[in-house]
Amino acid sequence: MSEFDLIGRLAPYLDGAGDDAAVVDVAGSPVVLTTDVLVDGVHVDRALSTLSDVGWKAVAVNVSDVAAMGARPGAATVGLCLPQDLGADDVERLYAGMAEAAARWGVRLVGGDTVSADQLVVAVTMLGDPGPAGPVLRSGARPGDRLVLVGALGAAAAALAQHRAGIDLDPRLLAAHRRPEALPDEGLALAGSGAGAMIDVSDGLGADLGHLCAASGVRAVVDADALPVAEGGGEAARDAGTELWALVCGGGEDFALVAALPAGVAPPVGTVIGEVGAPQPGAPTVELVLPDGARQDIGALGYDHLAGRD
Amino acid sequence: MSEFDLIGRLAPYLDGAGDDAAVVDVAGSPVVLTTDVLVDGVHVDRALSTLSDVGWKAVAVNVSDVAAMGARPGAATVGLCLPQDLGADDVERLYAGMAEAAARWGVRLVGGDTVSADQLVVAVTMLGDPGPAGPVLRSGARPGDRLVLVGALGAAAAALAQHRAGIDLDPRLLAAHRRPEALPDEGLALAGSGAGAMIDVSDGLGADLGHLCAASGVRAVVDADALPVAEGGGEAARDAGTELWALVCGGGEDFALVAALPAGVAPPVGTVIGEVGAPQPGAPTVELVLPDGARQDIGALGYDHLAGRD
Repeated sequence: MSEFDLIGRLAPYLDGAGDDAAVVDVAGSPVVLTTDVLVDGVHVDRALSTLSDVGWKAVAVNVSDVAAMGARPGAATVGLCLPQDLGADDVERLYAGMAEAAARWGVRLVGGDTVSADQLVVAVTMLGDPGPAGPVLRSGARPGDRLVLVGALGAAAAALAQHRAGIDLDPRLLAAHRRPEALPDEGLALAGSGAGAMIDVSDGLGADLGHLCAASGVRAVVDADALPVAEGGGEAARDAGTELWALVCGGGEDFALVAALPAGVAPPVGTVIGEVGAPQPGAPTVELVLPDGARQDIGALGYDHLAGRD
Repeated sequence: MSEFDLIGRLAPYLDGAGDDAAVVDVAGSPVVLTTDVLVDGVHVDRALSTLSDVGWKAVAVNVSDVAAMGARPGAATVGLCLPQDLGADDVERLYAGMAEAAARWGVRLVGGDTVSADQLVVAVTMLGDPGPAGPVLRSGARPGDRLVLVGALGAAAAALAQHRAGIDLDPRLLAAHRRPEALPDEGLALAGSGAGAMIDVSDGLGADLGHLCAASGVRAVVDADALPVAEGGGEAARDAGTELWALVCGGGEDFALVAALPAGVAPPVGTVIGEVGAPQPGAPTVELVLPDGARQDIGALGYDHLAGRD
């Protein structure tokens, strides 16, 4: 079973899933609502991250989902599963990291539920206000749109690659891995400029563009030369023996934003990295054009949270 | 560390916690927002409950929290941690139970996040609309108010007591344990009648009245004779060798509602079980008056989710 198979099987039970956040009507106004679950040993590696980093990240990933809807982050609740080896001081460290991230992005932590379990799990749920431009879904990209990316790619994956290769970690990459930056102001700016579709790069640029293309019924062609690589990413890829484009297009947790903007609109932030096309039979949905003109299918690159399960 | 100690330590990080749900402003309107986490082996016993029962309960406990705010349940998200031994069919069973409960109470399941973990965890987050009567907090009970309870007490605890004593389970108790009923219509009716404070009985009547009294700065005196006992509860207590009042006042997960209503108001639903008094030095905060006139301090009876931890 892959995560995406499962999402398909559960679709009949879910009302409107398929974006970074759900759009919900509250008292006549649309709000966005999103949940992200971090599991110790799966989404966080406590050899690399402190408990306060885990708290930061649990908030940041939700802010990034809200940002990808072109919305401003608001209130959040925390569902926390605590294993026996974590005491009150540890929980306070975790909450201190959440509070730092909350302060960074104007989030209010309003409550939650803390329970005993075998494994540390942090499930944050966040509301967001899409403002006058309205929520931006994944489904509104049109052939001819330009793809605009804000943020940098590859930092978290490069840090992990160095860690796994036993190389000293580049502190810039480690910092990005431990305390990712979400981009809600940039998301609001792109929404305000008329972005037809937007997504955050959480599974990897290839996979996430694949989701956007599937929802919009389009294809994407990306120019490798235009991709903003995190500082230190090139050296890390070389040292770890990985191709840079694979790291940059397949690494998750960059929390960059990618939007499809109509061709006539000047991007308010970010860089044009490619364009949206009509679907072509036989052609890959997400294609990367390398500097030498070679083309790579990158739609299948990226992180599948349930890969390898029955 | 007890759950209530921890809540105290985390208070500086949380903005407005301390009710069954948080009250959040969305586009100028108050909405309530709550998260409840169920952990396999802690909050659910799969010897007694199927996966679809677990799904039902994960929704019902959140509906009950929304009901305790005098609000109507709305959209919900699901954070799901899946151990390796659960496949797509199992996840569908869990979602089917959630969908049944969602249909029962008009909840929209709008999305969520499903990840791999060591243990089954279901974290549901729900929005609720408090309507014109506004959200009902725990803090508004006043001396002279009458305590009104709607629902029945002791079913889930009685089922567990029978299970632990190796006695055949009373099917009425087992049904209440597996598929608890939340009472949002009753909560709205109590809110509409001017309830000053309300709480659901999730930790146990004694403990939950203790929370309400602490938030309101009052004490409560409860008449044991007036308590509505779940059908079969008396026999179960006798067979399991437990005093009925201890089961009824200390058992959690009844999902009854208790409200403090001004004395002149006729309760629209439920039964008067006692009254609110001014705090008395040396007197228990929550006192049960037994049929023979004996008095029991029941404020410390009930479930503490983190009891026995450091």
